[in-house]
Amino acid sequence: MKADWIAVDWGTTNLRAFAMGPEGLRAEVMSEDGMGRLTPAEFEPALIRLIEPWLGQGVTPVLACGMVGSRQGWQEAPYRSVPCAPLEPGQLVPVPVRDGRIRVEIAPGLKQMRPADVMRGEETQIAGALALHPGFDGAMCLPGTHSKWVQISAGEVVSFQTFLTGEMFALFSTQSVLRHGMAGTGWDEAAFDAGVAEGMARPERLAASLFRLRAEGLIADLGADAARARLSGLLIGAELAASRAYWLGARVVLVGSAALTGLYARALAAQAVTVETLAAKDCTIAGLAYAAGALSKPVSKAAE
Amino acid sequence: MKADWIAVDWGTTNLRAFAMGPEGLRAEVMSEDGMGRLTPAEFEPALIRLIEPWLGQGVTPVLACGMVGSRQGWQEAPYRSVPCAPLEPGQLVPVPVRDGRIRVEIAPGLKQMRPADVMRGEETQIAGALALHPGFDGAMCLPGTHSKWVQISAGEVVSFQTFLTGEMFALFSTQSVLRHGMAGTGWDEAAFDAGVAEGMARPERLAASLFRLRAEGLIADLGADAARARLSGLLIGAELAASRAYWLGARVVLVGSAALTGLYARALAAQAVTVETLAAKDCTIAGLAYAAGALSKPVSKAAE
Repeated sequence: MKADWIAVDWGTTNLRAFAMGPEGLRAEVMSEDGMGRLTPAEFEPALIRLIEPWLGQGVTPVLACGMVGSRQGWQEAPYRSVPCAPLEPGQLVPVPVRDGRIRVEIAPGLKQMRPADVMRGEETQIAGALALHPGFDGAMCLPGTHSKWVQISAGEVVSFQTFLTGEMFALFSTQSVLRHGMAGTGWDEAAFDAGVAEGMARPERLAASLFRLRAEGLIADLGADAARARLSGLLIGAELAASRAYWLGARVVLVGSAALTGLYARALAAQAVTVETLAAKDCTIAGLAYAAGALSKPVSKAAE
Repeated sequence: MKADWIAVDWGTTNLRAFAMGPEGLRAEVMSEDGMGRLTPAEFEPALIRLIEPWLGQGVTPVLACGMVGSRQGWQEAPYRSVPCAPLEPGQLVPVPVRDGRIRVEIAPGLKQMRPADVMRGEETQIAGALALHPGFDGAMCLPGTHSKWVQISAGEVVSFQTFLTGEMFALFSTQSVLRHGMAGTGWDEAAFDAGVAEGMARPERLAASLFRLRAEGLIADLGADAARARLSGLLIGAELAASRAYWLGARVVLVGSAALTGLYARALAAQAVTVETLAAKDCTIAGLAYAAGALSKPVSKAAE
């Protein structure tokens, strides 16, 4: 099985590759060779190891997005400044490779100067979401380690704001004093809802609400499932309180994993906001496919 | 050099002991035998190792406060419920010991049911601050890993609220993505002030303000000293925004390390709040001295 072209989602922790044909996705494969564990010289071998079975006689285009394009990545793909379209095929950055069977381009991330903000990888998901929803105007939310809220108008990213929400959840639930009260992986929907309500109503009290999870565990029998779910709710609720300008009265599209988008959809539903949900993988592939469609144009010859 | 009695501040990370005589503090010593690394059977040997040079012919009273009295400590000293005096000599909890040269009592912590909150160790500092400022009415703030705001009236703790501020600073500055932009130990006062102002004005945006530190490091040349100081300011500012009911128009006493109380005093001065500052060590010793004063009373014979 050969690929016409290969889409690559190369983040800090994982490397995911998708073999694409005219009919769409043919195969996918994943490794833990994330950007964070590779030196510049190790990127090409890590990629070849993963995609070699898909390479044929000719040159197979590989389009990558994510932290692979950061300064600490394979090759820096300098940020483009918003407002702009999330991804422009002609502006992908070519990477010199030794293996003649591939040519590689990396999608540049986006930056915003005021307030300062950056994204890498999400721009491709946004481009994909726009490809799947042509003419979309409104807000996109990409929950994750660094959750993004994005205002889209006329095919461009007008502005965006990043929240440390996912990373905060990971730190508090596994590294802080709160970890003692939230072992396991269980869940409690009512506690999540209560956390969202509290986080939205009193976002400024977050540092106190966090300690209260510990105190209730010690003196009020708060269980681990409820504590973890309320922590998640508190953080998502605080994010929604601060991102109201994005979602209030707007069309909202969520792009992410089923688990995370489900939580955000539930929290937004409590605010009478209905959302559409797209899978992150589908959007990444659609975004890179949009870029791949221009690979034969002269403008991208620089990639060779 | 022998001690009349010994004050012990036994936290999660460190064990500090103070040899006390009629004139006050005679000597002090410290080890890293914190509660967190000891099993119950290891507490007495760890204590004896540290204080043995101070023990004489008779029985030397040892009064301890802090996490040593938690469920995971040497012996649980159950929380007392507020409103109540921060420390009552007759209610210290005796600990059975093998070594006949000492008798040991542990100060119980305080709990508040609504909103749920707990403290261990700070109650002793509060009692000490009250011993140093008899008749004090107003707010006390004890900044630290888990910063406490406390309302004091008529010698009692009326209510209190804990903020995860110090632990959040440690996590974000050393464990999160922000650590890449705040190496070293430098400081930038203007950046701290700006962080306080932003944290107080927009506490609900904390998760976004945090990520902005990273983004400004990447695209706007934010330096490590400024990033670390602004992070500190953001967190302290958010704490002040949420604790306004405690300090607004109140007498405020800060109890803690010189470095931390200095930051809080500076942040509060920007709100036209003047504070008095007491050193945590002085307050711990004064609080335990207050408890020690009752050691000869019949009520504490239970300790023998």
